[in-house]
Amino acid sequence: MTAASDPAAHPFDRAVALAAAAPGRWLGLTSEDYWNMVSPFGGVTAAAMMKAMLDHPERRGSPLSFTLNFLAPIEAGEFAIETELVRANRSSQHWAIRLSQQDRVLAQAIAICALRRDTWGLVEAARPDVPPAGRCPPAPPRKASGFLQRYEFRIVHGKPFAENPDSLSQAWVADVPPRPLDFPALTALCDSFLPRIFLRRAEFVPIGTVSINIYFHAGEEALVRHGAAPVLTVAQAQAFSDGHFDHHGHVWSTDGTLLATTQQLVWYKE
Amino acid sequence: MTAASDPAAHPFDRAVALAAAAPGRWLGLTSEDYWNMVSPFGGVTAAAMMKAMLDHPERRGSPLSFTLNFLAPIEAGEFAIETELVRANRSSQHWAIRLSQQDRVLAQAIAICALRRDTWGLVEAARPDVPPAGRCPPAPPRKASGFLQRYEFRIVHGKPFAENPDSLSQAWVADVPPRPLDFPALTALCDSFLPRIFLRRAEFVPIGTVSINIYFHAGEEALVRHGAAPVLTVAQAQAFSDGHFDHHGHVWSTDGTLLATTQQLVWYKE
Repeated sequence: MTAASDPAAHPFDRAVALAAAAPGRWLGLTSEDYWNMVSPFGGVTAAAMMKAMLDHPERRGSPLSFTLNFLAPIEAGEFAIETELVRANRSSQHWAIRLSQQDRVLAQAIAICALRRDTWGLVEAARPDVPPAGRCPPAPPRKASGFLQRYEFRIVHGKPFAENPDSLSQAWVADVPPRPLDFPALTALCDSFLPRIFLRRAEFVPIGTVSINIYFHAGEEALVRHGAAPVLTVAQAQAFSDGHFDHHGHVWSTDGTLLATTQQLVWYKE
Repeated sequence: MTAASDPAAHPFDRAVALAAAAPGRWLGLTSEDYWNMVSPFGGVTAAAMMKAMLDHPERRGSPLSFTLNFLAPIEAGEFAIETELVRANRSSQHWAIRLSQQDRVLAQAIAICALRRDTWGLVEAARPDVPPAGRCPPAPPRKASGFLQRYEFRIVHGKPFAENPDSLSQAWVADVPPRPLDFPALTALCDSFLPRIFLRRAEFVPIGTVSINIYFHAGEEALVRHGAAPVLTVAQAQAFSDGHFDHHGHVWSTDGTLLATTQQLVWYKE
């Protein structure tokens, strides 16, 4: 029995469960638990593509950089992921990853895995001084079904569907039910940010992420140390223009470790 | 005669000149004018890959997102670029681009081109209030040969090779000789930022960019309007850890237009 069919598994593990079909080729199934309006939540698609790379028997080291472009909506049902190890050297690997349905490529990613080395280091980004998650009330789910029910958002700053003076948001976010953090889950959390346009405009506007980029600043140990606690997510847009906006975000561990920085580009209707 | 062999052409145009070898396959030649320590300046490699996509007869719209991972050093001599239009719809195109020498892939990129639409917009990033380029003295070239001679840097903030309290830099940067801005040149300028580690440590440390990501926030008209003036570049690191650091940067036009936001991940030795 795979995680996809194991009713005792966490919904996230069921959603990203993959079956090896051939070397470098994996089959998965979209999940109703992580469904968005017309296709799966982009974060869970990203997580499945990350997981395919992590599951590859030749993978060495941990994720360092991951960029995913969404080409077209994924439909409910089976999908295939192809992982290509384009180049490897002693300390790093370069991957190309594509997700398709009926041989139509719907998402493409490039990624780097690397062995982390103990070096001089310095975190220059400042973690905002916010109350701990336990002192911030969970926001009521914005929808009765779909992926928003799979995350708990404790909003510290940034009221959605309002004309805020800026698009800065700070929120504690956790899987529902709680689940120990790993790279696929962190990848999905990097797409859990509220679309920035909802922080600048009061009315709903159709949107869709077209590109997401993640740099992982901490290794496996930091994720294990973090466990199943909420992560602190901070993001702000730079520009809304010509039908696309961006954001730049940080994901912090409860112990103050900068886990990831991320940016994305989002299409909007008008 | 192609730009590569035209002595009257701008060195940048010679460096990114490509000859069509087959549909979706282009040949280029590395340029001594843009040579870095052991391989070409990453920005000119990125620009050549951008140009291959732009030159493709099926390309529609202008660059929106461009992510390039550097896999291994490029050697002096001929290189091939392959451009694949992975998916196109009415308003956008998704590309995969690879650069190789002797069939070894040395750089891979994914990119999006899109038709820009007139929509509600807002620039949230703030252009720093700095003196105009004409009032900032050009920095003396850091090297007697190579790509650093092909750019003029007028540093406003951020003294290199010093232990600054943060890695923030602000600099006016221009092609030498001046050259009207276009997407390949802007792509290269997005890699012209001083490596952040040189703003936090006084001594030289070996470094190499492994990934660069660019979002283009303005279209062709804004670039034409900008012309050959210097661009204002602003960047800051978020973290230096485990042998890699990042930065997040902005490129502004003289008229205050946000041309691009960019981030990159850089390997460092110790």
